[in-house]
Amino acid sequence: MNYTGFIFVEGGSEIDSSNWRHPEIVDIVRRSLAEDVGSGDVTTDTCVPVDLIAKGVFLAREPMIVVGVDLLPILYDKEDIEILNENGSCVSEGTEFISVRGSARRLLTLERTALNFLQRLSGIAVMVSKFVKAVEGTGCVILDTRKTTPGLRRLEKLAVRAGGGFNHRFGLSDAVLIKNNHIAAAGGLTQAVERAKRQSRLPVEVEVRNLVELEEALAAGIAHLMLDNFTPELVCRAIRKVAGRAKVEVSGGITLENIREYSNAGPDFISVGAVTHSAPAVDISFRLL
Amino acid sequence: MNYTGFIFVEGGSEIDSSNWRHPEIVDIVRRSLAEDVGSGDVTTDTCVPVDLIAKGVFLAREPMIVVGVDLLPILYDKEDIEILNENGSCVSEGTEFISVRGSARRLLTLERTALNFLQRLSGIAVMVSKFVKAVEGTGCVILDTRKTTPGLRRLEKLAVRAGGGFNHRFGLSDAVLIKNNHIAAAGGLTQAVERAKRQSRLPVEVEVRNLVELEEALAAGIAHLMLDNFTPELVCRAIRKVAGRAKVEVSGGITLENIREYSNAGPDFISVGAVTHSAPAVDISFRLL
Amino acid sequence: MNYTGFIFVEGGSEIDSSNWRHPEIVDIVRRSLAEDVGSGDVTTDTCVPVDLIAKGVFLAREPMIVVGVDLLPILYDKEDIEILNENGSCVSEGTEFISVRGSARRLLTLERTALNFLQRLSGIAVMVSKFVKAVEGTGCVILDTRKTTPGLRRLEKLAVRAGGGFNHRFGLSDAVLIKNNHIAAAGGLTQAVERAKRQSRLPVEVEVRNLVELEEALAAGIAHLMLDNFTPELVCRAIRKVAGRAKVEVSGGITLENIREYSNAGPDFISVGAVTHSAPAVDISFRLL
Amino acid sequence: MNYTGFIFVEGGSEIDSSNWRHPEIVDIVRRSLAEDVGSGDVTTDTCVPVDLIAKGVFLAREPMIVVGVDLLPILYDKEDIEILNENGSCVSEGTEFISVRGSARRLLTLERTALNFLQRLSGIAVMVSKFVKAVEGTGCVILDTRKTTPGLRRLEKLAVRAGGGFNHRFGLSDAVLIKNNHIAAAGGLTQAVERAKRQSRLPVEVEVRNLVELEEALAAGIAHLMLDNFTPELVCRAIRKVAGRAKVEVSGGITLENIREYSNAGPDFISVGAVTHSAPAVDISFRLL
Amino acid sequence: MNYTGFIFVEGGSEIDSSNWRHPEIVDIVRRSLAEDVGSGDVTTDTCVPVDLIAKGVFLAREPMIVVGVDLLPILYDKEDIEILNENGSCVSEGTEFISVRGSARRLLTLERTALNFLQRLSGIAVMVSKFVKAVEGTGCVILDTRKTTPGLRRLEKLAVRAGGGFNHRFGLSDAVLIKNNHIAAAGGLTQAVERAKRQSRLPVEVEVRNLVELEEALAAGIAHLMLDNFTPELVCRAIRKVAGRAKVEVSGGITLENIREYSNAGPDFISVGAVTHSAPAVDISFRLL
Amino acid sequence: MNYTGFIFVEGGSEIDSSNWRHPEIVDIVRRSLAEDVGSGDVTTDTCVPVDLIAKGVFLAREPMIVVGVDLLPILYDKEDIEILNENGSCVSEGTEFISVRGSARRLLTLERTALNFLQRLSGIAVMVSKFVKAVEGTGCVILDTRKTTPGLRRLEKLAVRAGGGFNHRFGLSDAVLIKNNHIAAAGGLTQAVERAKRQSRLPVEVEVRNLVELEEALAAGIAHLMLDNFTPELVCRAIRKVAGRAKVEVSGGITLENIREYSNAGPDFISVGAVTHSAPAVDISFRLL
Repeated sequence: MNYTGFIFVEGGSEIDSSNWRHPEIVDIVRRSLAEDVGSGDVTTDTCVPVDLIAKGVFLAREPMIVVGVDLLPILYDKEDIEILNENGSCVSEGTEFISVRGSARRLLTLERTALNFLQRLSGIAVMVSKFVKAVEGTGCVILDTRKTTPGLRRLEKLAVRAGGGFNHRFGLSDAVLIKNNHIAAAGGLTQAVERAKRQSRLPVEVEVRNLVELEEALAAGIAHLMLDNFTPELVCRAIRKVAGRAKVEVSGGITLENIREYSNAGPDFISVGAVTHSAPAVDISFRLL
Repeated sequence: MNYTGFIFVEGGSEIDSSNWRHPEIVDIVRRSLAEDVGSGDVTTDTCVPVDLIAKGVFLAREPMIVVGVDLLPILYDKEDIEILNENGSCVSEGTEFISVRGSARRLLTLERTALNFLQRLSGIAVMVSKFVKAVEGTGCVILDTRKTTPGLRRLEKLAVRAGGGFNHRFGLSDAVLIKNNHIAAAGGLTQAVERAKRQSRLPVEVEVRNLVELEEALAAGIAHLMLDNFTPELVCRAIRKVAGRAKVEVSGGITLENIREYSNAGPDFISVGAVTHSAPAVDISFRLL
Repeated sequence: MNYTGFIFVEGGSEIDSSNWRHPEIVDIVRRSLAEDVGSGDVTTDTCVPVDLIAKGVFLAREPMIVVGVDLLPILYDKEDIEILNENGSCVSEGTEFISVRGSARRLLTLERTALNFLQRLSGIAVMVSKFVKAVEGTGCVILDTRKTTPGLRRLEKLAVRAGGGFNHRFGLSDAVLIKNNHIAAAGGLTQAVERAKRQSRLPVEVEVRNLVELEEALAAGIAHLMLDNFTPELVCRAIRKVAGRAKVEVSGGITLENIREYSNAGPDFISVGAVTHSAPAVDISFRLL
Repeated sequence: MNYTGFIFVEGGSEIDSSNWRHPEIVDIVRRSLAEDVGSGDVTTDTCVPVDLIAKGVFLAREPMIVVGVDLLPILYDKEDIEILNENGSCVSEGTEFISVRGSARRLLTLERTALNFLQRLSGIAVMVSKFVKAVEGTGCVILDTRKTTPGLRRLEKLAVRAGGGFNHRFGLSDAVLIKNNHIAAAGGLTQAVERAKRQSRLPVEVEVRNLVELEEALAAGIAHLMLDNFTPELVCRAIRKVAGRAKVEVSGGITLENIREYSNAGPDFISVGAVTHSAPAVDISFRLL
Repeated sequence: MNYTGFIFVEGGSEIDSSNWRHPEIVDIVRRSLAEDVGSGDVTTDTCVPVDLIAKGVFLAREPMIVVGVDLLPILYDKEDIEILNENGSCVSEGTEFISVRGSARRLLTLERTALNFLQRLSGIAVMVSKFVKAVEGTGCVILDTRKTTPGLRRLEKLAVRAGGGFNHRFGLSDAVLIKNNHIAAAGGLTQAVERAKRQSRLPVEVEVRNLVELEEALAAGIAHLMLDNFTPELVCRAIRKVAGRAKVEVSGGITLENIREYSNAGPDFISVGAVTHSAPAVDISFRLL
Repeated sequence: MNYTGFIFVEGGSEIDSSNWRHPEIVDIVRRSLAEDVGSGDVTTDTCVPVDLIAKGVFLAREPMIVVGVDLLPILYDKEDIEILNENGSCVSEGTEFISVRGSARRLLTLERTALNFLQRLSGIAVMVSKFVKAVEGTGCVILDTRKTTPGLRRLEKLAVRAGGGFNHRFGLSDAVLIKNNHIAAAGGLTQAVERAKRQSRLPVEVEVRNLVELEEALAAGIAHLMLDNFTPELVCRAIRKVAGRAKVEVSGGITLENIREYSNAGPDFISVGAVTHSAPAVDISFRLL
């Protein structure tokens, strides 16, 4: 039941296979299968003999990171599963990373559901790992956001970890993060911060849109700033201003093209919504042997 | 309760707002909210006065297609929602397409959950519409696949429709689609087709990997062929061979760059997994007024 | 996860015991038990010693077909079950077809729930088998309908198969079946067919009420006709008119008394709602040894 | 939330429409709809214009008793329903007993699910009413059993009431009912009765198979006897023996043919499993106007 | 599936460990765990090495009765559990009554959820046992009420049994219990009793507030009377009046201080709401070895 | 969706009535009703005329704090509810704080379920308010713990707020709280703190058992200390040692008798498990008018 919440900054906690047995995860896996099967797999049931036993392998069709193999026992309840590459492994194109043996019909009926999970989660890990690599040596940490797929947050946060990133807030209850709209509703940044600090002991992060707001946040004693939609150059100036008084997180408009420039400016964190809302799936196939 | 299943080929059925009231959709919306809220929205609850009434708008940050606005009444149960642009509308950057009025706290707590649905569904529609535009004039129809996000298939299939695409099978029970692994398990393409035709009256589609298999499928009387991972040139040759005896669907490795070349070859359908498994989210923001 | 949908016409797919492990079936079995047990089995808990171990048998009280034995492991989670006659077996009066050994209390508490499933499903299979026998030699296939017990469709369709019948549509998404009301709403049979064919590639079946409609359906290119409430004589004339251009299904008012006359007319299928909506339960008892 | 349990002997409690809003009933209605709709109603969605408004009526195709009309508002959430004949009304062939007005597509998609409930529940009420009529004037009360359809007990018990019958135990926790197997497990009828009486204050009923057991039950002070599989003549002798010391219930092998003979013998109750496990559905149709 | 309903008066039925596997109990245990874990156990996941194996013990911090140990296998699905003192055992301060061995992280994450069940259920049993002891030798039986914690009734009724008490009604369907409000609504005690007796064969208990009502209830033939908020002296007079014609239950305002005085008056039962609505938890700790 | 998590220290966020509409709360209310009703309310259904309309009031039988009135609309879906005293109001004995008007049967059937919620939640608030009053003037804040009733945490945390207390962690994911067992598993207090601080940015609180551990915790830079099972005198010494370097929370063995002595020592917080695990219910009755 690994914690997938507010910013593990060094090393993080090791991901434990018990994470993938969480009741909500078991539930989403089962509902996904039902969604696909409907009244039955007409192709398999007509084409494949009922008593045929077969072996199948999941095969990387491009270099990828293995994520989600611990979900397979939930799907294949009577089949034998052999996990050849553990969660988090980087594998090259052509690698067979899981093998399953059992009723040929079952293997074929479950194929697409298994692939839909594996491809999406691996896609996230791969995109994360590219951002991680792009900032290598700068000490900057890649974070995810709450811009996850409805219903899959727990899984996607685990995929971010598998890719070398860390997790920002799991949800709205983990930490205070004061944004534009909160500032507007509270009648000002200082007021918002004061209200939050007075009422809660959770960490308070403030999103600032310019150097004036940044000064105001520092004056309010904020130790974790999010620079929203700053240019790399402005990030440099901001970090000089902060001068170690707060952790600095850069957010908004980050791409693989510009992240190095941002990380060179020296922020502690860069958070990237794209890793969960826009990561393309990796190509994995299932082959019956 | 619109049908989102096997290939609507002309006009399709109009999407009905009752689709978005399906019990499974209500369920996923509620679970997503619970996933985000956890034990409560600490930021909003500390920063925002409990009795502040406000108005907020959802705002396109880039040109996009509006999808999923019918989900909002499920989230905002006591607030007033005004849908300014109906499902399927194309709107330009800066358009305010929904406005909501009610408790400021509620508006802020529900913001991210609403955005996560709207951004993802719109992203799918936008990608579909690019593929549709790319084949304009060729008569070729863009189809989705079963490579959807676990738990969101029904919603994603509706987004494909909003983008101008059509729906291939909803799931395994809609039609027979004989692929590699089925052929292997059945002991040959002809055997697989015979078994399927003998046992079911549903449409039978066969995936072929080369012209030899294509001949075999035509000989077996198949009226719907999927050409898997063919080059555009090979598609041309295949369609000449088919000579109208079957509908032809092209699948595998289709990108915005190469789809025009493929569609020029004259297939009836091109199916694109990327529209559901790899569509980047569009940028939408929520602004409190 | 056997397909229970659109008309398996020859041989059908073998029923696989994994069918009975479908999550929805597990769910209905558990809910039925809770429905019966309420706050506890007061009779058993007062009359039967807590540590008594016993053996019990399920016993056919009339000749019957065994259906649903694969449900028993869902109910008896700690007891030893021995299935003496497999799903689909015909057994004579007096046959003990399942034996269970374990806590006497558990055996007695679960008795009625188990019987309610077994008796109903067997009742369906038995009625189906009578219709199948009545048409023997004519080549006519007995089909079920969607007139099933709410919540039990998947189970009842499996019982139809166990009795030698085949499955028509599982539900509304499997195939187009244009009936009276659709024709009225579409503004005519031809219009309805055209709309359906233009928009979907699923098989289209049309229900006709007389020879005029039959001609119209054939003219519209329909390959599967349902003759609704025709007399046997009219079925003869219809089939002569069709002259092989379409499969012919007879429906409406079919009884064991008149089915032979209908089948002699030569239709491909006869569908009988009564097998699921009006099959009397067979008599099975549970006897503690 | 009407009580549907242990033997209402005179007048019973009036059935209240709030019974039909029980959470479990709402749940079974919704699941049944999902079961039928699958990925959507392909026929309606292709044939019927999306904006067509229509009116439809439910029509008795044979004389019947109206049961379950209170379920319709659960299905038709946005349509206008007019109930023309209340729950429990006897209507003649041709009666339109409910009318619904709204989206033509919705009316057609929901038709079969509504009919499956109405036909089954009415079928039960009709069969019950025949048994009630058969014993008219004898003072004998017709009871149901626990031999109900899995998942539908609450609904079926309400249907029994609509037909003029009364409800025996709702489930295992309502009353003690000592049968064969309990006697065997307890080591004798007297022992079973003693154990039950000592431990519970609920009513105790004992099933006896012959006059010897009947004597033993009376000696044990039992005030409610079930005569299991007795001939009418044996029932006469039993009742003379009982001489008013206990209520007498006749059970087992009761048919419409023999029930009068049984009731003439003077039992207080006759319980008939067939009314729930073997009642044929009545014929109801839905007609779009 | 032990019966937890209407007044087991002597010996009761032995509690069976299968009671604790009821689907509703499994469900509440899982929901409670999810409630506590949220997005993960941040303390354990950061402080405790992922591969540390440990042993832990549940330890009585005061003399107590062990209740609910059969719930632990539901929580600890992969760990080894050793139950050292069975359900219902009285243990002294310092007793280690359960030991668990497995992943240290799992043991710590599950600790609080396990303790919350064990402490509450034991607290109930302990309070019950004090009431039982206080009436020792008088033959008076301690009963619970329906004043239980929402969602936990089944568990709390089992805890009452473990403490030596017995169970009154499980819920509203077990027996008729006519109270003030019913009498008011029925237009009088006699009318209420008549309506109930005419319509149901379940046991009828009547709550009376004074000797006049008591006379009226006896005149109406009631065999089970509840004396509501009587003084001990009035209970004496009431019991003399009853003179064995009915079982007498005392209810309302019972405390450990006054119960002996009440029981000396000779009632058959005393029911105590406090045992479920106001029992303080016992002190149990979990210690990692 | 009010936050019920980590220590609101001043003023707290106002409780919003939308809190009581959380899906999990709706769910527990409905399940509790089903738990009580079973197969129906036999008393009400026999004694009370079906069409009787009545008014009833909830009445404080002792001075109490009103909590949970917002739950009533979930239960009484068709009745008129008038809330006469808002959530959090202190009312004297005899106050009618809610009135309901509707079907007499409905009012009586729902009575116990409503009372079970109101009595328990008010009981918590009352006990909290006594602790709050006991520390009045010392500036010390009363906190709850995670020792809540399984399944009711969200409700109980709201009750604590209604009583003037504040909420410590909602669950395991809100903050790091290092206890004995974590220290043991981590190999020492300093190691545990370092692991936690390195890996998470959430607030870290440490439980210390003596002044040596307190020193170690301060040396490790901990700003929130929990003194576990300290005497009041030791608390004094501890607070002098801390000298403002950390917030101090006292926990363990706190009673109404000794809390003043503790609070006089000057801690910031005192957390009391008893308010949720051992608060006796308040006495509320429902009276039909």
